Amino acid sequence: MTKWKRANPTGTRDLFFADSTLQEEVEQRLRRVFISRGYEEIRTPTIEFYDVFSFQNRPIDEERMYKFFDHRGRILVLRPDMTIPIARVVGTTMMKPPLKLTYSGNIFRSNKSLAGKYNELTQAGIEIIGIDNLRAEVECIVSAITALQAIGVSQFKIEIGQVELYKSIIKKLSLTEEDEIVLRSYIENKSYTGLTEFLKRKNFDEKDATIRLLQRLPRLFGGIEIVEEAERLATNKEMKQAVVRVRQIYETIARLGYGNYVSVDLGMVQNLQYYTGVIFRGYANDVGEEIVSGGRYDDLMGHFGEPLPAVGLALQVDQIVRVLKEQTPPAEIESAAVLIHYALETIEEAERLRCLLGKDGVKAELSMCETLQESFHFARKHGIQRVIDTAGDRLAEYEWKEKWQLMKEGETSCVTFKLR
Amino acid sequence: MTKWKRANPTGTRDLFFADSTLQEEVEQRLRRVFISRGYEEIRTPTIEFYDVFSFQNRPIDEERMYKFFDHRGRILVLRPDMTIPIARVVGTTMMKPPLKLTYSGNIFRSNKSLAGKYNELTQAGIEIIGIDNLRAEVECIVSAITALQAIGVSQFKIEIGQVELYKSIIKKLSLTEEDEIVLRSYIENKSYTGLTEFLKRKNFDEKDATIRLLQRLPRLFGGIEIVEEAERLATNKEMKQAVVRVRQIYETIARLGYGNYVSVDLGMVQNLQYYTGVIFRGYANDVGEEIVSGGRYDDLMGHFGEPLPAVGLALQVDQIVRVLKEQTPPAEIESAAVLIHYALETIEEAERLRCLLGKDGVKAELSMCETLQESFHFARKHGIQRVIDTAGDRLAEYEWKEKWQLMKEGETSCVTFKLR
Repeated sequence: MTKWKRANPTGTRDLFFADSTLQEEVEQRLRRVFISRGYEEIRTPTIEFYDVFSFQNRPIDEERMYKFFDHRGRILVLRPDMTIPIARVVGTTMMKPPLKLTYSGNIFRSNKSLAGKYNELTQAGIEIIGIDNLRAEVECIVSAITALQAIGVSQFKIEIGQVELYKSIIKKLSLTEEDEIVLRSYIENKSYTGLTEFLKRKNFDEKDATIRLLQRLPRLFGGIEIVEEAERLATNKEMKQAVVRVRQIYETIARLGYGNYVSVDLGMVQNLQYYTGVIFRGYANDVGEEIVSGGRYDDLMGHFGEPLPAVGLALQVDQIVRVLKEQTPPAEIESAAVLIHYALETIEEAERLRCLLGKDGVKAELSMCETLQESFHFARKHGIQRVIDTAGDRLAEYEWKEKWQLMKEGETSCVTFKLR
Repeated sequence: MTKWKRANPTGTRDLFFADSTLQEEVEQRLRRVFISRGYEEIRTPTIEFYDVFSFQNRPIDEERMYKFFDHRGRILVLRPDMTIPIARVVGTTMMKPPLKLTYSGNIFRSNKSLAGKYNELTQAGIEIIGIDNLRAEVECIVSAITALQAIGVSQFKIEIGQVELYKSIIKKLSLTEEDEIVLRSYIENKSYTGLTEFLKRKNFDEKDATIRLLQRLPRLFGGIEIVEEAERLATNKEMKQAVVRVRQIYETIARLGYGNYVSVDLGMVQNLQYYTGVIFRGYANDVGEEIVSGGRYDDLMGHFGEPLPAVGLALQVDQIVRVLKEQTPPAEIESAAVLIHYALETIEEAERLRCLLGKDGVKAELSMCETLQESFHFARKHGIQRVIDTAGDRLAEYEWKEKWQLMKEGETSCVTFKLR
């Protein structure tokens, strides 16, 4: 009988049994991969002052932040992002770059819709701070690839974009901020007609080389040939350099034998956020949500302390878990193999037996039932096939076949155990 | 140069490097102990509706909850407790008792003072639902003891209290709610004078047996002799039963060889909360904050669904980490042993070498520096003694002694590695 009639708050959910363990194990395995690659851990609070996130190009819209007040009336938020708090820590402590940091934790974004979006998301990620050469981007991508391989994501693609190319084009066109937003949305949605009409409306010359590049931008996704095309289309040194960097990163990843895990999308302009250079987005399949996101953000650190080049990415743990569950039906949680029934006077033997079984790799748990019959019932319900009764003078082991059958007495099948 | 002048929100903190890893490892090891004892995992959202916590005997004062609104104006809170959300899940899903659940996560309590209290706390705990016999309490205590041993807390004591004894006394005296609160604070603070004067003021007969027990209550802490004394002083069957249960639990734990980890405190009445029977509190030393807390809460489940007996406890991860750090100076994080310098064209060899070293148990990371000189600098700063340069035609291994010295060429000392 359920007395509680209310659903959970929008975008939140309960996880239990196999689902909860899978989520935790994915987080832990990602963590281990990053640590093994030389990253050091960092943890920041769930609650931050609103001001930490209140600057230009903030990562999420203001109305999507959970806001509240502290006892002194200051505005607090649930962190909507992990990179900005880490920039705050690095900027305000004595940490000396270059740094390779890794984190794992939850971020919060208030989505009003019930479109199945999670408002509390788990991210495991890395930040490389103080390195401006492209080895940092390469290390990010390779870390993500090896991490996704380690947790068994069988198919995925990391797309490489370049914010700098788009920004250079915009700069050359000297558009108003308003127009830029409209333009970006056309590119974002790969709306060629919208883009063409917009350029006409604004009286841009369609024969101008930069305009030609801009019109081509939504189609500039694919393999290395795309980068070569963009290099030819680039109309100044800035644009060329931006594209060359993508090519070098792509080539280096390919040299590592990971070429089939990466592709290029120069029309990736959706969330400029605080990114200043190469950006990443990873997908496990064409229709799903992104499982990796990140990029270079050379302007963020200066907001909190010393200006420093930086690049990082986050793995979206909830989405990755979803992918893993679609790949293969979730494995049953390994339930205990043995349930040990005991009388209060025999608890010592029961616990000793549990430890011995554990050392032999057999998961065993103590029954909390008063009668053997109840223990049988418990074991059946939890899929435990063997019950060992330590309540008597000698051990008795029962196995569920058609009903509970006494197997042996005085000695269990997996461990020799003298009772008293 | 720090530009950011603001402290973190009250009661929150950043953790990094060894501190962050220690906190995470403690959580993970506790988790493994509980899973190995047959507990199944559960995760609930950080955000809950206020209503989930708004009933009698709520776990924390209303003004200590972080409250805010969702887009529909409903009151949300950051969970101040883990047990109540778990009761909500069990009460509203098809989970069939008996259940052994384990969780790990953060709770939030808004302490205004700057007394060093954390407002965001990590708890790892267990809940046993659907078992009313004392094996459940025993399992809780044994789980906590084995967990604390597993993470290396060298000295600790779990105190066993009994809410039922105090409640039976109060019932017999038929006090008003107001008087009960005053009375409880005297017992809580072990204020004998206050207690005596209060009883006089209320015209209770000092020779009455129940009053004698009440007056003795603040002193009823210690070993098994305390329980025996309380059994003699009990003035009705209810009180006797309450004390007998404590004795049986104590004896069973002692039978397991864990007697030196437990003691009894029948004057433990501080936080009645939702507890209905035996309660637990663990301390690593006399002065510190509690590292374990919990108890039996047979009335809580019925608030959300089917009434069910239940008992659980939480380990306070932050306090445990504090204790571990006081016990022994924190171990240095194992930094990488080898830094592998590479040219972009040699990245494949570099990454292959990293994997080979990893398989040999040597932690190695790729350098992201462009020049060997910068790689040396990075290695020195991060305490890495060996640098392998893969940029040339043959491997060169350098070790820091007084300065970087070339050790070998063409072959590293720990792994035979053919370059191209």
